[in-house]
Amino acid sequence: MNCSPLRIERVAILSTGSEILQGLYADTNAQWLAAQFSSLGVTTVLTAAAPDHAQELEALLRYAANRADLVVCSGGLGPTADDVNREVFARVYRVPLERDEHAVEMMRARFVRRGRTMPESNLVQALIPRGATVLYNEWGTAPGFFLLPPPTAASPEFSQAPRAALLALPGPPRELKPMFRERALPLLKPYLAHSRYVLTRTLHTFGAPESELGEYVRDLFHRDERLIYTMLAKPHGVDIRITARASTREEAEALVREYETVTRKRIGERLIYGSDDENLPSVLARILTEQHLTLACAESCTGGLVAKLMTDIPGSSTYFREGLVTYSNEAKVARLGVSPSTLERYGAVSEETAREMLEGLLARTNAQVATAITGIAGPTGGSADKPVGLTYIGIATPHRKEVHRAVFAGDREFNRTFAALTALNLLRIALLEDHG
Amino acid sequence: MNCSPLRIERVAILSTGSEILQGLYADTNAQWLAAQFSSLGVTTVLTAAAPDHAQELEALLRYAANRADLVVCSGGLGPTADDVNREVFARVYRVPLERDEHAVEMMRARFVRRGRTMPESNLVQALIPRGATVLYNEWGTAPGFFLLPPPTAASPEFSQAPRAALLALPGPPRELKPMFRERALPLLKPYLAHSRYVLTRTLHTFGAPESELGEYVRDLFHRDERLIYTMLAKPHGVDIRITARASTREEAEALVREYETVTRKRIGERLIYGSDDENLPSVLARILTEQHLTLACAESCTGGLVAKLMTDIPGSSTYFREGLVTYSNEAKVARLGVSPSTLERYGAVSEETAREMLEGLLARTNAQVATAITGIAGPTGGSADKPVGLTYIGIATPHRKEVHRAVFAGDREFNRTFAALTALNLLRIALLEDHG
Repeated sequence: MNCSPLRIERVAILSTGSEILQGLYADTNAQWLAAQFSSLGVTTVLTAAAPDHAQELEALLRYAANRADLVVCSGGLGPTADDVNREVFARVYRVPLERDEHAVEMMRARFVRRGRTMPESNLVQALIPRGATVLYNEWGTAPGFFLLPPPTAASPEFSQAPRAALLALPGPPRELKPMFRERALPLLKPYLAHSRYVLTRTLHTFGAPESELGEYVRDLFHRDERLIYTMLAKPHGVDIRITARASTREEAEALVREYETVTRKRIGERLIYGSDDENLPSVLARILTEQHLTLACAESCTGGLVAKLMTDIPGSSTYFREGLVTYSNEAKVARLGVSPSTLERYGAVSEETAREMLEGLLARTNAQVATAITGIAGPTGGSADKPVGLTYIGIATPHRKEVHRAVFAGDREFNRTFAALTALNLLRIALLEDHG
Repeated sequence: MNCSPLRIERVAILSTGSEILQGLYADTNAQWLAAQFSSLGVTTVLTAAAPDHAQELEALLRYAANRADLVVCSGGLGPTADDVNREVFARVYRVPLERDEHAVEMMRARFVRRGRTMPESNLVQALIPRGATVLYNEWGTAPGFFLLPPPTAASPEFSQAPRAALLALPGPPRELKPMFRERALPLLKPYLAHSRYVLTRTLHTFGAPESELGEYVRDLFHRDERLIYTMLAKPHGVDIRITARASTREEAEALVREYETVTRKRIGERLIYGSDDENLPSVLARILTEQHLTLACAESCTGGLVAKLMTDIPGSSTYFREGLVTYSNEAKVARLGVSPSTLERYGAVSEETAREMLEGLLARTNAQVATAITGIAGPTGGSADKPVGLTYIGIATPHRKEVHRAVFAGDREFNRTFAALTALNLLRIALLEDHG
């Protein structure tokens, strides 16, 4: 039977660009696309990158089209001689290229809006394989397209023709992502294995190693074959991913909910700080906003990172008051009123200095919540008493004032980031406990 | 002639791991390996990832071995049933697996050092294809290996046998990198096209678009075939890469020097701020240290990012004094002495406020160099008069005091980063001009 309808269960993702093969970039488009297909319940069987070279791309496209139901190609659609994808697609799929006049108009209009006239070399970007559905590009110049495999692909005389559908997308991530979501996905949907719903919930933890967390939930890993239950150690915490596949949305939702509930119960909110797109700054920001509290920070070793993380979030002026980066001892004295004798007697990295930084900050600002951090980020500056990584973190809420001691064991960047995140996490836990 | 010696000019890099194909990670091993080969003058013709699935890996390995002189495989050498690489290698290269007893001893010793006994399941990691050179692993458990293609590969009866050599490396980056550098590279060296020396110099620019820079150096791109002269637009600046291949080191060095000199002359140090591993913070740090000056900063929209960037660098206490993250108007008044009437009349984002922030900072600290930044990072908060991205940047050196106006046109993260880098670049240029 030659005309069985396309059913997309296996996808191959191909990137073109000599920069990737020179090692200048990691192929983040492939990662992003693979994650999209994963959440649609479609398996990626290959990701690969070929140089901007017609022969290499043609060989790879033929290989991929024999192993997948859909080949997604990104890049190689530019206006220069380097961009060989269009020619290769036409040759492999045995269809001529034809100019799409609407795409030409869109490109011209784009140039006009910028007060320029379009070079004739851009016309090549409007060439589309005959029979393909054009994906118009509002985010850049080159349109993409979706091409079904020829229906005769299975007959022996056409054994050279590919059996996979082809989705061509532009390479720049800020074009590729909206093109995929808004243009390609609606076209692909009818061909996806629609009996399966896939839902994923990611729980983020901070403060315990993978092995400890594993002990709490060991029995959940292989309990239900509709579920993929995994742990991923990230540099600053461990994620727990719960992915359910089911034949209805309700079933998938119920499964995820069931496993999320039991996971949260076993591990607890001291360790699980958030889920999915949340991160520690955004969770603390939410709690501060809900509790109508404002934050100030005094930083030494973290050098502004706490302030930076808390102001990464749009609208941060509702909860963030100010930050004092008192890197030098002078600044600790002048800005926070730390006593010179404390600095001399105990050193800048000490419980006493952290406490005076915190007190000084509270006395000088109207913020109800505060953190003060002083430590030795490294790589030098440590001693036998005070090793690299030693950090004192003061936190204050309306109900408590504490200084915590920690020793981080990474490089400068790790120690600074971990110190900042630890401060945010201590504040998060304190505010939840104050309130609960 | 069947026994022509292997000559490695084209490499394929294969990664295994279902996590990559689920989009959980970008394939950074492939990027790193491609960069290593690029610096050795070897072309990577394919990077690809296959799931932990014997059939997929076998197909990909056969494909790659037909298109390259060397296939580098990373991952899939663990002790569990997921790890199928060894079996696939043996099948494709038609050699049996044999246990390497020295590798077994190394693994046992590793477990003993950690006070544990080695599970029997680990023994499988010591299986090596017959005839391969073992790469012993001091950084983890699984050894790697290097296997030459069978000498009879070219005869028709063995047309299924691969013509490429195979290098198998463990997947974790902290094992893969030293294994490649210290174990694999000495073995590969005799097969590399050894008559070529490859040198690369990267010049970093800030503040001009690719098209403008291209005008200055247009004629250099294809002037010498021993040279690859390219431009790469990064999010916050354009890099110019000069790569020379020559038969002697002296020739390669002379070529790079010649093109670097003419490029710097044409473009100038206002736009070219550094080279290779340098970045804007490290260059400004160097200039401050050389000129014995210290820096303080006052930040509103950048929320601590300038302070964070300048303290990312080890030893930053020699030039960085303090940072005031005066995010709220109150903090601008209390910490910097900005006049409430200025804030009311001109707004927090205005030339006047930036100037008073800068003056206040200079009056309150002992730093000789200062920057003050206030702007609208977005996504909201803009108006017709004051669009999102509008930013005022004050800079002060011992010889000047200026406020610059800029409008950045990206999202919140882009605008904040660009504002911080622009401030550092303005300071860099001012200090160079003061001194020159």
